[in-house]
Amino acid sequence: MPELPAVPLTLEGSAVLHQMFQFDWTKWKQLPAHEQKEIAHEASELFAHWEHGPADKEHPNQSALFSEIGHKADLLLIHFRNTFEDLNRVELELAQLRLFAYLKPTHSYVSVVELGLYESSAKTYAALAEKGLEPGTPEWNAGIHEATARIGNSLASRLYPSIPPAKYLCFYPMDRKRGEEVNWYTEPMADRQKMMHEHGMIGRRYADSVRQIITGSIGFDDWEWGVDLFAEDPLVFKKLIYEMRFDKVSAVYASFGQFFLGVRLSAAHLSSWLHGKLGE
Amino acid sequence: MPELPAVPLTLEGSAVLHQMFQFDWTKWKQLPAHEQKEIAHEASELFAHWEHGPADKEHPNQSALFSEIGHKADLLLIHFRNTFEDLNRVELELAQLRLFAYLKPTHSYVSVVELGLYESSAKTYAALAEKGLEPGTPEWNAGIHEATARIGNSLASRLYPSIPPAKYLCFYPMDRKRGEEVNWYTEPMADRQKMMHEHGMIGRRYADSVRQIITGSIGFDDWEWGVDLFAEDPLVFKKLIYEMRFDKVSAVYASFGQFFLGVRLSAAHLSSWLHGKLGE
Amino acid sequence: MPELPAVPLTLEGSAVLHQMFQFDWTKWKQLPAHEQKEIAHEASELFAHWEHGPADKEHPNQSALFSEIGHKADLLLIHFRNTFEDLNRVELELAQLRLFAYLKPTHSYVSVVELGLYESSAKTYAALAEKGLEPGTPEWNAGIHEATARIGNSLASRLYPSIPPAKYLCFYPMDRKRGEEVNWYTEPMADRQKMMHEHGMIGRRYADSVRQIITGSIGFDDWEWGVDLFAEDPLVFKKLIYEMRFDKVSAVYASFGQFFLGVRLSAAHLSSWLHGKLGE
Amino acid sequence: MPELPAVPLTLEGSAVLHQMFQFDWTKWKQLPAHEQKEIAHEASELFAHWEHGPADKEHPNQSALFSEIGHKADLLLIHFRNTFEDLNRVELELAQLRLFAYLKPTHSYVSVVELGLYESSAKTYAALAEKGLEPGTPEWNAGIHEATARIGNSLASRLYPSIPPAKYLCFYPMDRKRGEEVNWYTEPMADRQKMMHEHGMIGRRYADSVRQIITGSIGFDDWEWGVDLFAEDPLVFKKLIYEMRFDKVSAVYASFGQFFLGVRLSAAHLSSWLHGKLGE
Amino acid sequence: MPELPAVPLTLEGSAVLHQMFQFDWTKWKQLPAHEQKEIAHEASELFAHWEHGPADKEHPNQSALFSEIGHKADLLLIHFRNTFEDLNRVELELAQLRLFAYLKPTHSYVSVVELGLYESSAKTYAALAEKGLEPGTPEWNAGIHEATARIGNSLASRLYPSIPPAKYLCFYPMDRKRGEEVNWYTEPMADRQKMMHEHGMIGRRYADSVRQIITGSIGFDDWEWGVDLFAEDPLVFKKLIYEMRFDKVSAVYASFGQFFLGVRLSAAHLSSWLHGKLGE
Repeated sequence: MPELPAVPLTLEGSAVLHQMFQFDWTKWKQLPAHEQKEIAHEASELFAHWEHGPADKEHPNQSALFSEIGHKADLLLIHFRNTFEDLNRVELELAQLRLFAYLKPTHSYVSVVELGLYESSAKTYAALAEKGLEPGTPEWNAGIHEATARIGNSLASRLYPSIPPAKYLCFYPMDRKRGEEVNWYTEPMADRQKMMHEHGMIGRRYADSVRQIITGSIGFDDWEWGVDLFAEDPLVFKKLIYEMRFDKVSAVYASFGQFFLGVRLSAAHLSSWLHGKLGE
Repeated sequence: MPELPAVPLTLEGSAVLHQMFQFDWTKWKQLPAHEQKEIAHEASELFAHWEHGPADKEHPNQSALFSEIGHKADLLLIHFRNTFEDLNRVELELAQLRLFAYLKPTHSYVSVVELGLYESSAKTYAALAEKGLEPGTPEWNAGIHEATARIGNSLASRLYPSIPPAKYLCFYPMDRKRGEEVNWYTEPMADRQKMMHEHGMIGRRYADSVRQIITGSIGFDDWEWGVDLFAEDPLVFKKLIYEMRFDKVSAVYASFGQFFLGVRLSAAHLSSWLHGKLGE
Repeated sequence: MPELPAVPLTLEGSAVLHQMFQFDWTKWKQLPAHEQKEIAHEASELFAHWEHGPADKEHPNQSALFSEIGHKADLLLIHFRNTFEDLNRVELELAQLRLFAYLKPTHSYVSVVELGLYESSAKTYAALAEKGLEPGTPEWNAGIHEATARIGNSLASRLYPSIPPAKYLCFYPMDRKRGEEVNWYTEPMADRQKMMHEHGMIGRRYADSVRQIITGSIGFDDWEWGVDLFAEDPLVFKKLIYEMRFDKVSAVYASFGQFFLGVRLSAAHLSSWLHGKLGE
Repeated sequence: MPELPAVPLTLEGSAVLHQMFQFDWTKWKQLPAHEQKEIAHEASELFAHWEHGPADKEHPNQSALFSEIGHKADLLLIHFRNTFEDLNRVELELAQLRLFAYLKPTHSYVSVVELGLYESSAKTYAALAEKGLEPGTPEWNAGIHEATARIGNSLASRLYPSIPPAKYLCFYPMDRKRGEEVNWYTEPMADRQKMMHEHGMIGRRYADSVRQIITGSIGFDDWEWGVDLFAEDPLVFKKLIYEMRFDKVSAVYASFGQFFLGVRLSAAHLSSWLHGKLGE
Repeated sequence: MPELPAVPLTLEGSAVLHQMFQFDWTKWKQLPAHEQKEIAHEASELFAHWEHGPADKEHPNQSALFSEIGHKADLLLIHFRNTFEDLNRVELELAQLRLFAYLKPTHSYVSVVELGLYESSAKTYAALAEKGLEPGTPEWNAGIHEATARIGNSLASRLYPSIPPAKYLCFYPMDRKRGEEVNWYTEPMADRQKMMHEHGMIGRRYADSVRQIITGSIGFDDWEWGVDLFAEDPLVFKKLIYEMRFDKVSAVYASFGQFFLGVRLSAAHLSSWLHGKLGE
């Protein structure tokens, strides 16, 4: 039997951009009220359009706005789109808003919705190998293609998700460690699959209270994955991540970037926020 | 007997925000005296209101102001509130002050008051296991819920604390290490419990001279915990932390962020501070 | 038989400069339309000239412009030239543009096109050693010189490449690790050669969908190598890099810098971009 | 015999603040000469007052000014005071100077003069233990208190030092390592004492040419200790630190922050410095 | 026979300052031509004076200017002087130029020309020990003093060097590692001497095409050494450093800072550079 690939299959969906901004309150407050009103109106219209997504949509392709807690950002925008080119168009469109003069970019994250298929990979690789196929041959590749297409169809709504309407967002990027002794990428596929399975089991227990969207960013940004958690009760973020920190894949192999915590801000409430009011 | 959870129980209380600002003295000193007076008055009123907390308060929900030593910040504000949403409201309210034009955010910290229950966890897990319950079953979860509710009630004033009125504040964030050989999260629960117990014993000996509030920030900010120490004599911070640095849990497993040292500044003294005077 | 050199032969070609800029939309949008038009026209002319390369060119010596996704940069320029002095001239010429007042340099990368010759090195060293030559002797050096000149001639178009016209660019710098236990530079030449061969095999499977240009930056910039990937479908960047992350040379020995993702922007479309439109 | 404490005794004296500033020459040079003169005069008077220290001084409580070499700072101020509150008053007083509009804070360091008493600790702990006392008991604590008071009296001038008048200053912060294998805080007291003794022996050989003031910053700033070296000949800094780098406590356990090198600038020469002249 | 010192002898010469600046082209281009001319003239005169060095010079004491490639700096100045105080005077003098309003300091490096004497140290220590002298005794110190004075005289032109007139400069700072397992400072003197000898042998082979000046910065700046390489062909920097990266002292013990690459810019060509022309 041939050596099976070490790389798990993945499925990719929406291209995703996180944009974090500090808001220049001092400059904003110097504006006369009627200018503030015009600027807020223009921005609210665009954000409402983005919030809703395109009319003729094959995919939701929404954006969402969050009021961030702490100095790392005042506003955070998440955009889901069909392509990276479309994300770039969103950036350019935002930059044309008059409101953009009051937004200072502090962070961003570029990634793509990713479903990691550790279990399906193992099964698919084993099944193809049992048929006597060799990795890399046209027959093998056809088998892989057939399997991922089938799985992709069944998971379309997770690959091109709507943005969950929950009150709170937690976002952070992460890596798998490649240390001198602890190295995720040299662990056998079967061990990685087992650890990911246990990891997933914890997430499943929180499924009622938290929605999770994993995006992959290898080749697109400075970490390997981005994690978005959506929940009504933000304590759930802490409970979930703390519990996961003790499972093997996180305890031993995870390396975390910065954490961002925000409160959902509907486009309809942007004008109010620009007067210093949250969600009113 | 089933394998007991590796995750200790925790109780959470007030949502907490630390805000650090540099003050733009040059811009401030260019203002005419009467404008300075108006701006100082407006800010003092809000800070006095926050210092006192709401009238109809179930919890203290106070804020406190500190004059920071060193260039990392000139002013530090700590806010305790019921929810993260309320903390975001505080940020927005502060940003509407005219004084905000002279404040440059340099750091912040988002966390929640946390009581770690290593000892109670061990006892509770053992008691439930002795009853033959399995972790994760509804009966187990009910037992956990009952135990934490009971402990939470008895610790309500520590979960939603008043801000100690001490003269000096020391704040720093910290992590438990997840190194290649030294990894807190893979240590057995009993060992962690023992180390935390010894750690707590040192703190207890300093209880007369220093008040400590631990906040958890997993999922909320870039470190796992924040530590606030309040004391009349700042040398106690050094004595306490230096002694702890030799206990096993700190010597081996602690990783520290930046340290902030401040002198308490009552709202009543803010105007004086804005003229360059401390506590007069 | 004498000890053979540990250093693989390399061939160098074009000097290369990556320039990353944030664009000051706020300042730009304050300009009257006719000034924007003049400034855009001046910049477009220079960029068109650079895009095409010199008329009497021995080498392509082109530049290319990309619209970047995320806050790390809004625009990225890559320049290929004969010498580093010429690159410096490009920087100075760019700085004379009126458009430069709206460009804030955020990153850059200085390197030279490099072809690593692990396989040829091994063969050449062995052949010279079999003739009884000693490394470092004039005869040895003459043999090395003759071999690299021969290879260089056959690879001239790869040493002084045209810029691939693909829609997307992925750029990142990288190092080989020199850790306490894992150290690329103390591994035997034969092992390094084998790992590089396997690494190259993966790249070869992606050759239809991605063009790769490796540049060396030892002595020129803060990382050892820069990698430019060009593709029509940006998902290929992720697939390729993720697969490579599991091969030994990357899993164990690679250390990565920041990743930059851009959409090709022809000089002809710059004016349109300056009105917030991509590729129209 | 009971287990003796792992923590060495320390004595603390003056609270110390280092302030580093870049000077805005461009803004300064735009001032008319008479304004420069007024501003320089005001600052020189305050600095002269601080240089001298208070008239009715129990302790020297001086400040000193240095002209820094390199871009990390143009001016560095060291302040010794009785309390941290007094240091904060110094910061506020400095900020009221008209000169402050030309000073941009780039770094700072908050610490307290510390005398580490490894040898006395060992002797005192042994003596108390021989009397049959247990660490932590009131009798033990009384014995410790008596010993440190006695030593403190004999070292008063080192705890509250005058600022040495030497021409050059070298300042840097440092930590003792807490690595996975190399951990100062888990080494036995006797080994640490021996290493510190050898370390001190080197310093003693340089005592004629360099004055050293060690300050402790655990709980106050981001490193554990600050080191100030004062010498007429700055090459002595290099000789001393290079030689120490080979002793065990530095070679194995030291971790260093940034280094700052300055030339003493008397208040009387400040006006001259503000015209670009050093020490004239 | 007594234990010989672990510290190699060093000789020190010129104090050296590297200054890196970004140039504010936008602000510069707003000046009327006659002002640009005056400012350029004033700066060119000072730089020409520095380039040449003082008339009555005991040592060359020159400065040199480089046009840097990449965003880390636009201009780099190196100054060699007799003392650090003189370097500080150079900084102050530069700051008085009208051109300084267009220079933004981005980096700097403070160091002193250093000749490491590993081979002479070993011989001298052995010779003194054979005479029965003990390290640290007056007789030993006299012997050391006599030896270093003799060597210093013979190397005066390398201790106080002229600045090589080559077209390209490569500058980078570096450390020797003090890791948990790999620690230069705990290696035996004889092993370090052997590694430094092999390292030097590589440098010697490049002596025709590259001039190297090593400066020491322990106690002066954030790294231990600075390396300046001067060459007509910048590819030599890459060849030399890449080859060295495989020798043991670099492969295992070297840690590198940022790399700066510049093209020599004579004072006579500064005005031309200020119009965007290089070397014309």
